[in-house]
Amino acid sequence: MKTSAGRFFQDYRVGEVMIHAVPRTVSGGERALYHALYPARHAMASSDEFARVCGLPASPLDELIAFHTVFGKTVPDISLNAVANLGYAEGRWLRPVYPGDTLRAQSTVIGLKETSNGASGVVWVRTEGINQTGATVLTYVRWVMVRKSAGETQAAGETQAAVVPTLAASVAAKDIAVPAGLDFTRYPFDLAGEPHRLRDYAVGERIDHVDAVTVEEAEHMLATRLWQNTARVHFDAGGRADGRRLIYGGHVISLARALSFNGLANAQMIVALNAGAHANPCFAGDTVRAWSEVLDLAETSAPGVGAIRLRTVAVKQGLTGQDLRDDQGKYLPQVLLDLDYWALMPL
Amino acid sequence: MKTSAGRFFQDYRVGEVMIHAVPRTVSGGERALYHALYPARHAMASSDEFARVCGLPASPLDELIAFHTVFGKTVPDISLNAVANLGYAEGRWLRPVYPGDTLRAQSTVIGLKETSNGASGVVWVRTEGINQTGATVLTYVRWVMVRKSAGETQAAGETQAAVVPTLAASVAAKDIAVPAGLDFTRYPFDLAGEPHRLRDYAVGERIDHVDAVTVEEAEHMLATRLWQNTARVHFDAGGRADGRRLIYGGHVISLARALSFNGLANAQMIVALNAGAHANPCFAGDTVRAWSEVLDLAETSAPGVGAIRLRTVAVKQGLTGQDLRDDQGKYLPQVLLDLDYWALMPL
Amino acid sequence: MKTSAGRFFQDYRVGEVMIHAVPRTVSGGERALYHALYPARHAMASSDEFARVCGLPASPLDELIAFHTVFGKTVPDISLNAVANLGYAEGRWLRPVYPGDTLRAQSTVIGLKETSNGASGVVWVRTEGINQTGATVLTYVRWVMVRKSAGETQAAGETQAAVVPTLAASVAAKDIAVPAGLDFTRYPFDLAGEPHRLRDYAVGERIDHVDAVTVEEAEHMLATRLWQNTARVHFDAGGRADGRRLIYGGHVISLARALSFNGLANAQMIVALNAGAHANPCFAGDTVRAWSEVLDLAETSAPGVGAIRLRTVAVKQGLTGQDLRDDQGKYLPQVLLDLDYWALMPL
Repeated sequence: MKTSAGRFFQDYRVGEVMIHAVPRTVSGGERALYHALYPARHAMASSDEFARVCGLPASPLDELIAFHTVFGKTVPDISLNAVANLGYAEGRWLRPVYPGDTLRAQSTVIGLKETSNGASGVVWVRTEGINQTGATVLTYVRWVMVRKSAGETQAAGETQAAVVPTLAASVAAKDIAVPAGLDFTRYPFDLAGEPHRLRDYAVGERIDHVDAVTVEEAEHMLATRLWQNTARVHFDAGGRADGRRLIYGGHVISLARALSFNGLANAQMIVALNAGAHANPCFAGDTVRAWSEVLDLAETSAPGVGAIRLRTVAVKQGLTGQDLRDDQGKYLPQVLLDLDYWALMPL
Repeated sequence: MKTSAGRFFQDYRVGEVMIHAVPRTVSGGERALYHALYPARHAMASSDEFARVCGLPASPLDELIAFHTVFGKTVPDISLNAVANLGYAEGRWLRPVYPGDTLRAQSTVIGLKETSNGASGVVWVRTEGINQTGATVLTYVRWVMVRKSAGETQAAGETQAAVVPTLAASVAAKDIAVPAGLDFTRYPFDLAGEPHRLRDYAVGERIDHVDAVTVEEAEHMLATRLWQNTARVHFDAGGRADGRRLIYGGHVISLARALSFNGLANAQMIVALNAGAHANPCFAGDTVRAWSEVLDLAETSAPGVGAIRLRTVAVKQGLTGQDLRDDQGKYLPQVLLDLDYWALMPL
Repeated sequence: MKTSAGRFFQDYRVGEVMIHAVPRTVSGGERALYHALYPARHAMASSDEFARVCGLPASPLDELIAFHTVFGKTVPDISLNAVANLGYAEGRWLRPVYPGDTLRAQSTVIGLKETSNGASGVVWVRTEGINQTGATVLTYVRWVMVRKSAGETQAAGETQAAVVPTLAASVAAKDIAVPAGLDFTRYPFDLAGEPHRLRDYAVGERIDHVDAVTVEEAEHMLATRLWQNTARVHFDAGGRADGRRLIYGGHVISLARALSFNGLANAQMIVALNAGAHANPCFAGDTVRAWSEVLDLAETSAPGVGAIRLRTVAVKQGLTGQDLRDDQGKYLPQVLLDLDYWALMPL
């Protein structure tokens, strides 16, 4: 059998390291496509000149390009047989990615736990994105529910003991990696698009990002393929009874982040991913909106550079009221994404 | 209030200079996407080798990439609350844009006039696109009808006096900026695709560009986002009662220009925009065709380089006959674009 | 008449050389778009680092980018009035194409034969893709059935005598051009994605590539334009009675090749095209699958580099059973592509 049907729950072992296939050299092409696919306007990822005024050698690629590229590589080894993408934690961007860089990825299994019915299990992995110099550019933990392969479900109980990793509720402000050289003391607010500094935001403040985008099939498939994420559910209209293709959750992350420009134009670089839930699937035809809540504010050691912790929520048409959950605490069906992250902002 | 709902008529003052946000570094990625989005085949914007034979250091990006990039930056400050994009004048491309250049934009308000019902007004702006060296690459005037904000419409008459700028009916041939070094004396007609020189065209000649393109939602949204034009009307299917998304007028300009290759392959570089009307909105599903009329012919001071003034008209399915206007002088509903510009062509 | 309606059968002469228009400089933009348009994951065309470990100076663009770019240039001169694209032979990739290269194309007419009803004829051309140094990067023969122009069909019999070229049934293994410097002795199987070497494959082995992709209108039009193939049948919904746009056959070639990664991840570079049939048209909404059969295995003179001859077949929904042809030997309507080619693989 030359082809891969993906891995099943019982194929994983705690401590195992997976080298993910297909390293990728990124260029201005990925940047241009990112701007075509998402309404992205954060200036740091748009202009070399802007980035240089802020102390970087050139404009880094959007941090989510790095994330999606790394994530895409992990899919064949981790989530091809995933029933659900359960969560993220301890995500940290350690170095900017520039055009010309080559990214590869590897993951370590850090936890395994069977579900009570024995048909599947939760797999926790810590993934690293690594550039051509061997430096880690990104690290994050995610956990997914993975099916057991057919015929093996009866072996429940015979597999290894459950290991559930202890994960931080959020990345501490002191653990944020600020890119070397970053300096916001000459930050050009006029070119960034908004005048608001870190001190203009208050914890608890909520920002409705105004705009809305209706998603088309061609768009999410172009995006998902761009990250070499070739999971069939995103591409094969024959894969579901209802003929719909599931939109890659990362597509919604990028949509929400891009929409957040309106009100958060100066939340320039994502530096940490604290938590994230893909609350409900998104499909073509859905119109996506986003709002954010300020969760925390912090200083960093870099000149003029503060950090803002944000909760950005993406919803689709039909949500009335501000509640995201029903009486049982379950996300309402219109909620797509609930993301908790840190970004850098001028003090 | 952190978010912007755009500016309204009464927010503008004659003489005011607006620095538009989000500078953008362009690369081969924007070029590749331009070729994917439009049937563009003009050789100067396609091949470094071709451009070098014609005296340029490399292939410049299509002039409309520069135009759309600059235009996109102006949208949040000028046309987010525009009711209509009324016209263009005095557009001049002053320098080619190459991969690696960074573009920013600024506009000066040069005219203001309330409409008679007091609910809106016309705003005239002169916009400049500026590269990383501070040089202006593009300048044009456009005017839009902008709403007043709610509750302010009664203040009509209390605002500043009307200022209506005097604009040239067209850019004079002598005012065309020919790129430094451009030389068409060794112009490779075989590689350009057609044998016709400037002297082969006659004023009044009309060219039907043969081809036709049916537009899809994903395409115009990718294009419009690529220029960081994030005006909601182009993206939100819930924004209109009929559920349709308005196609960015510049998308039709690029479609028409690309279609004009068939018959105008040697009209290589757009150097001036004399006038332009987005006669009717374009929607996904429309099939766009184009024809051009030769309005004028001129020489330039550059070796072998002539200039051709063209009227290019884009129409959609359903137009019968050659009339573009009805008895009242109003554009027929199938007319999308009526554009008047200069391009450079070998003598 | 400034515009071109394409050439008709009686416009060709055996021995005639056509210089095709619009040279094209390719960049990382074309690479990024290729990855967005197809589920392409072969590592050699994805990563500079991977390519360097294999002895090349950088990651070459996917061989099909070279093919489509060259093919696109030939369309206005060869297949604008083609009734059918009948076949390919003697295709050889002679040099990798890298970002920054400029490609042009020329074709020589090597055969002509009228059809028996006199309404059309078969034209054989040998096409070369040539880079900025004047080196041929790609050569192939294709033949198409081309209409006669109206009013000329009665002249059948008065035209030149039939010339039918003798073409090799396949490119001999010894005639494969291995890129200078290619060395698979340190080939990183883990990063390539599969462990299978040439010796792990057997002649006659069949591999089902598992995945499937449903095609959208916007996708195939973006792709086809990217190669500056502007043939109206691919873009104009009004061009057929059924309102459908014909998908460029090369789009299906790239889809099939990309899908073949799953099971043929180490078939890294396409080096020869032995034969190919676009068995039936593909339309938006079709879900494309692919399988491959190993036809031959060979060594090359380059260190560690073998060659695998593959037949890759693309089919759409509705094919039951393994037969591709009906009782009369005609392809079943669900068969889209039947392609025979050589690729390089570690020994």
